[in-house]
Amino acid sequence: MSPDYFERHQPMLERALAAAAERGYWSPFAESPSPRHYGETANDDGRAAFEALRGKPFPLEARSAQGTVGGERSPYGFALDISYPHVPPAALVQSAGQALQAWRRAGPRAWVGVSLEILARLNRRSFEMAYAVQHTTGQGFMMAFQAGGPHAQDRGVEAVTYAWQEMARIPGVALWEKPQGKHDPIKMEKRFTVVPRGIALVIGCSTFPTWNGYPGLFASLATGNAVIVKPHPGAILPLAITVQVAREVLAEAGFDPDVVQLAAHPAGDETAQQLARDPAVKIVDFTGSSANGNWLEQHARQAQVYTEKAGVNQVIVDSTDDLKGMARNLAFSLALYSGQMCTAPQNIYVPRDGIQTAEGRVSFDEVAAALGTALGKLCADPAKAVELTGAIQNDDIVARIERARGLGLPVVADSQALAHPQFEGARVHTPLLLRTEAGNPAISQEWFGPIAFVVATDSTDHSIALARASVVEHGALSLSAYTTDDAVAARIQDAAEEAGVALSLNLTGAVFVNQTAAFSDFHGTGANPAANAALSDSAFVANRFRVVQTRRHV
Amino acid sequence: MSPDYFERHQPMLERALAAAAERGYWSPFAESPSPRHYGETANDDGRAAFEALRGKPFPLEARSAQGTVGGERSPYGFALDISYPHVPPAALVQSAGQALQAWRRAGPRAWVGVSLEILARLNRRSFEMAYAVQHTTGQGFMMAFQAGGPHAQDRGVEAVTYAWQEMARIPGVALWEKPQGKHDPIKMEKRFTVVPRGIALVIGCSTFPTWNGYPGLFASLATGNAVIVKPHPGAILPLAITVQVAREVLAEAGFDPDVVQLAAHPAGDETAQQLARDPAVKIVDFTGSSANGNWLEQHARQAQVYTEKAGVNQVIVDSTDDLKGMARNLAFSLALYSGQMCTAPQNIYVPRDGIQTAEGRVSFDEVAAALGTALGKLCADPAKAVELTGAIQNDDIVARIERARGLGLPVVADSQALAHPQFEGARVHTPLLLRTEAGNPAISQEWFGPIAFVVATDSTDHSIALARASVVEHGALSLSAYTTDDAVAARIQDAAEEAGVALSLNLTGAVFVNQTAAFSDFHGTGANPAANAALSDSAFVANRFRVVQTRRHV
Repeated sequence: MSPDYFERHQPMLERALAAAAERGYWSPFAESPSPRHYGETANDDGRAAFEALRGKPFPLEARSAQGTVGGERSPYGFALDISYPHVPPAALVQSAGQALQAWRRAGPRAWVGVSLEILARLNRRSFEMAYAVQHTTGQGFMMAFQAGGPHAQDRGVEAVTYAWQEMARIPGVALWEKPQGKHDPIKMEKRFTVVPRGIALVIGCSTFPTWNGYPGLFASLATGNAVIVKPHPGAILPLAITVQVAREVLAEAGFDPDVVQLAAHPAGDETAQQLARDPAVKIVDFTGSSANGNWLEQHARQAQVYTEKAGVNQVIVDSTDDLKGMARNLAFSLALYSGQMCTAPQNIYVPRDGIQTAEGRVSFDEVAAALGTALGKLCADPAKAVELTGAIQNDDIVARIERARGLGLPVVADSQALAHPQFEGARVHTPLLLRTEAGNPAISQEWFGPIAFVVATDSTDHSIALARASVVEHGALSLSAYTTDDAVAARIQDAAEEAGVALSLNLTGAVFVNQTAAFSDFHGTGANPAANAALSDSAFVANRFRVVQTRRHV
Repeated sequence: MSPDYFERHQPMLERALAAAAERGYWSPFAESPSPRHYGETANDDGRAAFEALRGKPFPLEARSAQGTVGGERSPYGFALDISYPHVPPAALVQSAGQALQAWRRAGPRAWVGVSLEILARLNRRSFEMAYAVQHTTGQGFMMAFQAGGPHAQDRGVEAVTYAWQEMARIPGVALWEKPQGKHDPIKMEKRFTVVPRGIALVIGCSTFPTWNGYPGLFASLATGNAVIVKPHPGAILPLAITVQVAREVLAEAGFDPDVVQLAAHPAGDETAQQLARDPAVKIVDFTGSSANGNWLEQHARQAQVYTEKAGVNQVIVDSTDDLKGMARNLAFSLALYSGQMCTAPQNIYVPRDGIQTAEGRVSFDEVAAALGTALGKLCADPAKAVELTGAIQNDDIVARIERARGLGLPVVADSQALAHPQFEGARVHTPLLLRTEAGNPAISQEWFGPIAFVVATDSTDHSIALARASVVEHGALSLSAYTTDDAVAARIQDAAEEAGVALSLNLTGAVFVNQTAAFSDFHGTGANPAANAALSDSAFVANRFRVVQTRRHV
């Protein structure tokens, strides 16, 4: 008999349900890579496991493979030399359809149990995953561990939790008894079966393959769908490990492992488009460019499409009682993973006549200088800085720094190429901070990477108007503001609520606008062009399954 | 101070939440038009109120009206001569946008309270509504009362209930406290604000303007959206009364009544298309033809689109221990409102070598004859029959009966024009039942109206395969089956679950496949081409609002 994974993880699930309702701090997994949590040899074992994968075919069974595909290069300067089975889209869909038959009938308890077991096993491979994430995305090791491991797993558990919550409210059976006055009541038995939509597609990105991939993957899997995971050709390994673990658990639970498949493919081919438009594919989760996301929303009409796309994140600086804390916090947000985060700030609005601080009036130039100084301090020691910035994922981003320099704007802090003490060929670049005026059209687009602007505005109300209009038109994953004035804070909050973007106020300490915590912060709102869904809420899961009822008299 | 409608209706809301979870029988409103429930004079008062509306401009304020529009004719043979303000689409959208500002800030308690008060007041106008529904849709009085009044109100309350359930799970504020080892924890206050999508559009149909219109209308209103209600030009009055009541309650609660507006328009113009594609319109609810519904799904890309379209409903006859009961029940389902129901059966599959019954083997012809006999009995007395069949909503449906006759198939029961004892010009036609073979392409389309087919199949398994394929390809709102064999029932149920259609088994008594009960039966599954949503579930409401959070250190 296969193990009852649901029963095994039920205590965690119940705690997760409470956490999602209360939205206080909670995580089922330790975010610290300390040996206290993961064991004395965990780091060495993980590194060894990663090294053992290099230069070989990745161990993943794929019945209909036609050759292999691969070619990932670490942003730290070396080739991974790992090959993956290459399965044509039609064969993936066919296998998923076959595997779906028994999986569909297994029901919510089995779907949720298997999903949580996969996540628990992924947690045990967090160090191996950290190295895989580091050497595909370019993240520094600590971020690769946390965001690629436990934080991604948190978001997976969160999606499963919401899925269970929605499915659990459907009673398996109900007795319907309608009074008929003096006559006997009409009695019917009604059975309600939760059924999946069908085949789901997850399209991964190159910067956060697991963190951005897990919510859709586990939301679809936990609602009974078969899932095809299509990684970005530049970051296959983290999702290949994920698929490997999923298939292992599925097989142990007595299911066809093709319930979860990997769709590794060469860069530039039509795999994503073919899969997304296949009539059998009913759900698509996507993270990536606005062009590709909008294409999916337009063309994958047979599917529910959940997208996270580009946006322009903004900071409104009105006043502060901690100018240094503000500058340090913002500089950290700009430098973290070299701004290669969908939540990283880009446009920092400061009134051109300066702001009020604890030390009195401070000019625009002084605010800009404070940011430049803070950036300089963060990046002064390359050995420390590279742990924060990580490496640049691809050459397009490096080229974008050059393009930004080419705008000819005054430079507040220049981007520097840093030598990595451990990896000779690492592509490391610190943030470029430019100064500009509010009317500059250049700031209406996303400059993904270590590029940001201090923008002179007429006033805080002007800043708020700019921010609101930009969110509505260009989208945003985050909005940050600094003000000591409650009335201003209320106006900013109202603008954020009208435009539909999450707001962080007066972050000067150890929390950064880039970060969101599962079970507490919604990631994205689904209410502006940067994303049509939030991670995670009821809307993210409730349409991945349907209910079919059967009624009869009793 | 405006009244606290939420508090007033909270007991009903709490009962409704429990009912939706248990899915047993429950209704907040009496479905019987008995004076015991609605008062001795309710019928006379309602008829008088309806008569008082005829031949006049409908009393509805509309600031930007440009003339009037109207022209409804009762299917019972007379003109209503009611005119409505005609407001151009752009003006409707502009007024809705203005009204939205204060409505958006009022929050879930106000939205839900106002919605439930509107429904409670609509209940008190159920007799007036019954006459309005009868003389626009052609429904018999009893159906017009029940489906147009309390049952529609039930579906409205149900949508509000789901909306409240989803919004209520978002905490207004949370304290996030993250441990930092030996250091003080990081503490943040997070405020979560439920915000509406924006402007919602409800596109009504000519047969069930309130029953099909209320779920979308109240789901959108209860989640803070401003709603534009666009009635079918042939059935404006029931939704005009609805909008009138909504505006009255909104004004009393201190809101701009333009939160709910009527978009009456001439037949054949572009009002629906213009509204549906307006960038400010973020939600569309539609009931009507597949052509129009598919157009909306393709073109209203800026909006969440919820559609109920055409389908082909089927009956699988395998065996029965009550042939007469089966025939009577099916005949009733065919005759009820002359088959002008999205849930009415059309294709009745019977194995050509007959079926097993309590009286032994019965041939295909005998099954068909039993259906014909039952239909004949139901329609034998025109005075009684017209109460069941009502009148035909429009001439296209009468023409469709002719077209069906023109197929040249053997007639099991012919359609008859009946004289209505009360209304001389009433358009009354009894069902046409034809016999055909499984391969006939004619039965792959919807024949909306009093048209059905007894279809000879090779076997019950053949019937199941036909039914499954038809649901997947052409959609269906209902599936009915008769079998005394549990194994056959299980195979049919599996097919229904795979294809995604609700199943009713062995209905031989007072429940008909056409009927679904709010709080218990889901109407539609959202899993086949006949409808992309179900009435009502979490998915129907959860994406009509979004959550915007604001966090700060404490």
